Amino acid sequence: MLNYQPMPLDLAFQALADPARRGMVDRLCRGPASVSELARPLDMTLSAVVQHLAVLEASGLVRSQKVGRIRTCRIDTKVLHTAERWITERRASWESRLDRLGEYLAETADEPSSPTPRRKT
Amino acid sequence: MLNYQPMPLDLAFQALADPARRGMVDRLCRGPASVSELARPLDMTLSAVVQHLAVLEASGLVRSQKVGRIRTCRIDTKVLHTAERWITERRASWESRLDRLGEYLAETADEPSSPTPRRKT
Repeated sequence: MLNYQPMPLDLAFQALADPARRGMVDRLCRGPASVSELARPLDMTLSAVVQHLAVLEASGLVRSQKVGRIRTCRIDTKVLHTAERWITERRASWESRLDRLGEYLAETADEPSSPTPRRKT
Repeated sequence: MLNYQPMPLDLAFQALADPARRGMVDRLCRGPASVSELARPLDMTLSAVVQHLAVLEASGLVRSQKVGRIRTCRIDTKVLHTAERWITERRASWESRLDRLGEYLAETADEPSSPTPRRKT
């Protein structure tokens, strides 16, 4: 698509759509880590880890800072919150629909029904 | 990557990474809809809508059933719940880390510090 500008939520969900990147987010939620620490549990080259990190940084989920030879990565929970809120609001909308349906069914059941004789076939 | 089998969460987040598909999920959280109803607010061909729908169905977020000429789509909240839970757990992990950090700082501040004379320079 031409001139397609991805929205923050597009980038966030895209970033979370990969198990290695989710692993990195999971690790960083427990505290900052260097790139080598992030790479340690992953079965991939350091270059692949750096590419995944670039996707995470572009989405705003992760920020990193290089001091000397060490790049330290940190989670930025703002985008994680936005993604969570989007899903939570949809779930709330769905549950509210279920509640209304439940109320409607309860009201219908409470209504005094006019006695309609059963037709024998 | 060869032999890469996407996981349910990969497919769910991938499906949510597009604004049109999020719009369809949003609509379906308010009740079932036909494909034409889903397409109405979207500025795209019916064929593109059907392709997006296929991605949503492959992720398990949406189920559809054709009766006569009408295909009716429904949300399946199981996958939405799984995606929400993944993010919520990461946020909880991050907040618990912040709490521990706060407790540590409070304990350190409470400790009776030995009077260390300031060195004059």
